[in-house]
Amino acid sequence: MSRLSSQIAESAEKVNRFIEKVVDLEGEPELLYRAARHIIDAGGKRLRPFLVLKSCRLVGGREEDAMPTAAALELLHTFTLLHDDIMDQDEKRRGVPTVHNQWGVPIAIVAGDLLFAKVYEAITKFTDPKHVAPERILQVLKEISEATTNICEGQTRDMMFESKETVSENEYFRMIQAKTAALFKVSARCGGILGGAKKSQVDRLGEFGRYAGIAFQVIDDVLGLIADEKVLKKPVGSDIREGKRTLIVVHALENASKNQRKTILETLGNQAASPEQIRETVEMINSLGAIDHAKEVAEKYIVRAREALAGFPASEDREDLISLSDLIFARQH
Amino acid sequence: MSRLSSQIAESAEKVNRFIEKVVDLEGEPELLYRAARHIIDAGGKRLRPFLVLKSCRLVGGREEDAMPTAAALELLHTFTLLHDDIMDQDEKRRGVPTVHNQWGVPIAIVAGDLLFAKVYEAITKFTDPKHVAPERILQVLKEISEATTNICEGQTRDMMFESKETVSENEYFRMIQAKTAALFKVSARCGGILGGAKKSQVDRLGEFGRYAGIAFQVIDDVLGLIADEKVLKKPVGSDIREGKRTLIVVHALENASKNQRKTILETLGNQAASPEQIRETVEMINSLGAIDHAKEVAEKYIVRAREALAGFPASEDREDLISLSDLIFARQH
Repeated sequence: MSRLSSQIAESAEKVNRFIEKVVDLEGEPELLYRAARHIIDAGGKRLRPFLVLKSCRLVGGREEDAMPTAAALELLHTFTLLHDDIMDQDEKRRGVPTVHNQWGVPIAIVAGDLLFAKVYEAITKFTDPKHVAPERILQVLKEISEATTNICEGQTRDMMFESKETVSENEYFRMIQAKTAALFKVSARCGGILGGAKKSQVDRLGEFGRYAGIAFQVIDDVLGLIADEKVLKKPVGSDIREGKRTLIVVHALENASKNQRKTILETLGNQAASPEQIRETVEMINSLGAIDHAKEVAEKYIVRAREALAGFPASEDREDLISLSDLIFARQH
Repeated sequence: MSRLSSQIAESAEKVNRFIEKVVDLEGEPELLYRAARHIIDAGGKRLRPFLVLKSCRLVGGREEDAMPTAAALELLHTFTLLHDDIMDQDEKRRGVPTVHNQWGVPIAIVAGDLLFAKVYEAITKFTDPKHVAPERILQVLKEISEATTNICEGQTRDMMFESKETVSENEYFRMIQAKTAALFKVSARCGGILGGAKKSQVDRLGEFGRYAGIAFQVIDDVLGLIADEKVLKKPVGSDIREGKRTLIVVHALENASKNQRKTILETLGNQAASPEQIRETVEMINSLGAIDHAKEVAEKYIVRAREALAGFPASEDREDLISLSDLIFARQH
């Protein structure tokens, strides 16, 4: 295990223990708390909390001051997963049935809502105002709320794309900046704010998070098409079946011949598409260079992320953040 | 129009204008913002904001310091309505189609989420820390998060009741204290906190809100059975059809003969029940004294609400809060 991987694993352990304090293992009614913890307990690398904690350290802050917010942003992420899975009608996540698949849509909605409420409870209850100025805590809460607004806007655009004939790369990037990158951005910014950073430092951390977040989503799109299903722990090709306009699909459609375009559009969003049909469409998309294009785009954003940190003096924490962005690019699931 | 009614109408106007600043009329994607504003724009008395503003004034605070929180708590209320309507499969609300009925479940979920995010955005962005100490703003945010946790727990219990054979009055009260009264309680408490009240004053305001909230829900149960459909602006008897365990149903089942119990349970939760069958069941429930019992219970809680304010010196604002609780008892819709 690399130094970074063991650091991530160690920080995930701490974050998990903190989450147990916030989303009570003994909470009642039991059904609600079991549903709320289901996807959290199924795994996940806790990359967003890691980003919060590292950003806090990079600017000289104390990790414990950022821990409630780190855990809170994992809860925020999980809340969006629960609700997105309903909207996308996904059946599996992290190798287990999705919450609505196991307990029904109503419980999945209210369990997501509970996690969202716990985001703010975690921060307001456990951030010590003796160590972090209340003004900074308020700033963190404000930025998290704005990021969540962005996430809702992005998720809506993503759904609207499914019924659109043409989606441009610009529209795609606008969507993922809101849906995915906003959460990475706010994670890095909050780490900085809680660590006592100056505004210019917070802004640079935010740019790092935003670029890394864009790369994360583009790689996610790639893995959704070509990963090993056992490693990915969800069905490969479901993006195609759901009609998602990933960067890969957008690029393939832009470069397809009339006939190829017809074939791709016939499979896209076709719930009844056979595994064979999905496989053939993925091959066609690949032959159009769309997967290579996506990898190049992701790499470009990783470079930008690294550059965003150039203004910070060299340090182990800065190196770790750069390694984190490399890991985002190189991940297999 | 009584003095109180015109005050409520006037305050609702101000709250509505503030909400327009927070849930942007020009927000994009337009579909999301239209869905989020749909039930807000369809009406409502804005009783929870009124309770926030009045509680703030009662303890000598400035109304403008409480306005962002007043509007936020209406947004919180609306968010729960959007999600509850999905869970309960309700088709109408405030005389218009519910959001999921008009735009589908996915948009109703994400529109609710957006409103929830805007709760915190409203407070953190618009409460002036020059006039309200940041510690008090943080306290307000913490209490709102805890109240939302309660609401989620209560909503889950309410759903779980539908598949239970027997629900006791105690279980019913535990459920509505979480599902409904927690929001009234936190509204009154937040008004006090933002107005600079001492802890003992905040606690007394919270008790007033809690008792008034219990009465509100019990009266809501009554109106759901006997109100004029045109005034209520939603289908009468839908509680019965959905199998809701209202205080009325709980009391009727406790006092029913074996045969009556059988008849009531056959109609309860029976989506295919005819209007005639619903009417007959309501008559049977009424003949068991369950509706009178509910009105008596509501009155008892209104008296307790009034008593909770006894510790405050007599003032116009105190009289207005007492009139508000009387209005909650006497309302027709």
